[in-house]
Amino acid sequence: MSELSGNLLVAQSGGPTCVINASMAGVIQEAGRHECIGEIYGGLNGILGILHEELIDLNDEKARTIEGLKHTPAAALGTCRYKINFDRDPATAARDMDRLFAVFHAHDIRYFLYAGGNDSQDTAHKIHLQARQRGWDMRVIGVPKTIDNDLPHTDHCPGYGSVIKFNAATVMEVAADVKSMATDDGFCCIIEVMGRAAGWIAGGTVVAKRSPNDAPHIILLPEIPFDEDKFLAKVKDNVAVLKYCIVVCGEGIKYANGEEVGVDKSRLDAFGHAALGGAADRLAEKVQGALKLKTRTVKLGYAQRAAAHFASLTDATEAAACGEAAVRAAVAGQSGCMVKLVRTSDAPYQWTTGLQPLADIANVEHFVPRDWISDDGMMVNDKFLHYARPLIEGEVKVPMECGLPKFAVLERSLVEKKLPPRG
Amino acid sequence: MSELSGNLLVAQSGGPTCVINASMAGVIQEAGRHECIGEIYGGLNGILGILHEELIDLNDEKARTIEGLKHTPAAALGTCRYKINFDRDPATAARDMDRLFAVFHAHDIRYFLYAGGNDSQDTAHKIHLQARQRGWDMRVIGVPKTIDNDLPHTDHCPGYGSVIKFNAATVMEVAADVKSMATDDGFCCIIEVMGRAAGWIAGGTVVAKRSPNDAPHIILLPEIPFDEDKFLAKVKDNVAVLKYCIVVCGEGIKYANGEEVGVDKSRLDAFGHAALGGAADRLAEKVQGALKLKTRTVKLGYAQRAAAHFASLTDATEAAACGEAAVRAAVAGQSGCMVKLVRTSDAPYQWTTGLQPLADIANVEHFVPRDWISDDGMMVNDKFLHYARPLIEGEVKVPMECGLPKFAVLERSLVEKKLPPRG
Repeated sequence: MSELSGNLLVAQSGGPTCVINASMAGVIQEAGRHECIGEIYGGLNGILGILHEELIDLNDEKARTIEGLKHTPAAALGTCRYKINFDRDPATAARDMDRLFAVFHAHDIRYFLYAGGNDSQDTAHKIHLQARQRGWDMRVIGVPKTIDNDLPHTDHCPGYGSVIKFNAATVMEVAADVKSMATDDGFCCIIEVMGRAAGWIAGGTVVAKRSPNDAPHIILLPEIPFDEDKFLAKVKDNVAVLKYCIVVCGEGIKYANGEEVGVDKSRLDAFGHAALGGAADRLAEKVQGALKLKTRTVKLGYAQRAAAHFASLTDATEAAACGEAAVRAAVAGQSGCMVKLVRTSDAPYQWTTGLQPLADIANVEHFVPRDWISDDGMMVNDKFLHYARPLIEGEVKVPMECGLPKFAVLERSLVEKKLPPRG
Repeated sequence: MSELSGNLLVAQSGGPTCVINASMAGVIQEAGRHECIGEIYGGLNGILGILHEELIDLNDEKARTIEGLKHTPAAALGTCRYKINFDRDPATAARDMDRLFAVFHAHDIRYFLYAGGNDSQDTAHKIHLQARQRGWDMRVIGVPKTIDNDLPHTDHCPGYGSVIKFNAATVMEVAADVKSMATDDGFCCIIEVMGRAAGWIAGGTVVAKRSPNDAPHIILLPEIPFDEDKFLAKVKDNVAVLKYCIVVCGEGIKYANGEEVGVDKSRLDAFGHAALGGAADRLAEKVQGALKLKTRTVKLGYAQRAAAHFASLTDATEAAACGEAAVRAAVAGQSGCMVKLVRTSDAPYQWTTGLQPLADIANVEHFVPRDWISDDGMMVNDKFLHYARPLIEGEVKVPMECGLPKFAVLERSLVEKKLPPRG
């Protein structure tokens, strides 16, 4: 493949993680090493900002700021959930594509890197196909990103190691707290973590379990239909032995009929809206009601995926490497692929990056294998533990200022627009 | 006061913090420096364990374990919420006191140190008075402890600095996350923190605010009656300017009629129980309903008070110093006092310890002064900021093992019982 000269555009999409900016730092630093790449642009708010021709000049940013992205949570470029949907609205999708390629033409974008999860890889795939169709010589590479860890073909996803590291530390700390308060009356604490369809995040908290009696004592995954009676019996058994029970539940756990546990339709307000609160609160009501057990809940929400103050160094290193590998692949002539992480050795843990066609990735969800889950469906086993353990190793060193983390902030010098506003 | 020879007993009470063990480490290390103190005992589960004569020998613990307590969350001795209540049940209270003093006699306890919040200081006070009445020469000193920061006469309470440090970092991180996702549609995130009666914890997150547009944008304190219309208007204003709004609310915020916002009586299940979920979820329902704004919640629960992985070094240092000061005061002949923290200078921040009669402390709650809160009641002002800022300075260095904090665990070598079981 011949060398392709032109500009690079990187953008971020979907829910942020605390290492998605590390991937971007990898992209920018690697891009700076290749003569064929001219300008390094960032698209604001993913595909949505690119449609509005909102690009910033990343070459204008200080080297220290770019390095600082490696410990900065959230999406420094902004993100979006906008989807180019040819099935649902072909007219808008076609118009969007025309507009995107007008922006690519106007700014001579020859390298397009998109960091995101399933939906975003689908978008990257469509752009790759359109570039071929339109005869626009541009290389499109997807950079994996999702705390949900549900992309296929990659050993794991950047963002995942950090979220389970923070969540596991929280499980250990909450367990110590609850244990120290547990008397003969018993105590239950239910910690709700993210994961609507896949149980990777809930299952990953197993790394907190260093001996059989350690928390978490129960892990509920969305993959396994929730069985109330068995759940209550297991809480009761744990409290009988330990006086306390720490439950971790994925937010999207469901009954056998597919209904989410967190959406309790029996509790409606005057307008017929179900009460908010989520799975942990609904489980707590059941435990308190059936077992008369003092029960508290923790709902980490976005705090877990943004917890840069306790990010995994392994995760941040891999995230940056994915960004670098994406640029190298594009420069080498690849397009229509996503960078993936490949585990080459378990002990010691070793990894490298690889490439996978976006066609294999887009819109495919990867779930926790059934044989990584205990027979009773309420715990994960050693297979999961061995998989997850190396991903939390090491701590990202975050500079501190007056007792709080100091995050990098982009100057965001806007690239002059060359097109009329989006119609 | 003449020198008093005998054994020391320390116990922990009430809700744990991530530095209550640092106070215990201070007690143990200081006690080791005084010839007059013989054995150093720990009472398990506060007053409750002492009633059961469940004492452990803290001299048997490794020096490294004791030092490790300074970064270990929860109550290493266990804690309780048991109250000796002469008003409600004088017969039981009198029996409890007889039993406690039987234990003190049996083990020659001449120094009794009790770490806790309001209720626990009340218990310490009662024990001090009973010792005088019974002619048992024993010195009783309270060690302050509460994330709620609601003890009077002390500048602040050990435990408080760490909880607001972790919560403020979380506010910064969640704000970065939400901001990067905020599009024209707007986004609101409501973070619920502890504090049922006093707003110290909610207010303390103001340290995250480094410039006027920084989160938190709204802080709701239990001291100020919740005004729904004004709240919704302020959320709307913030979103109009910034596209997002981060709200921090104390769990115990109340309407003007005294009803808690978190207990929504309009949502009942078949048995008439109100839905769990708390203030943040109830506020989110209001924001979504009235403003049609995408809204998410975070409920940190016990995670915030146990977050030893990000504890304040200032807090841990002061907590240990309170334990040391308690022993020194007792050896010097004091009894019936609580150690307090005294701020001797604001810039640079300097502090020392002092003593306050327990009679002034017991059951008195200290609230956020009205003139530390903004006129609209939904933010705290510079007075609060200057108060809180120094308390989060510095980070406790926690040893790590396989990517997770390594906490100290007591061997708990039990002291031989000398009494018949509690009746």
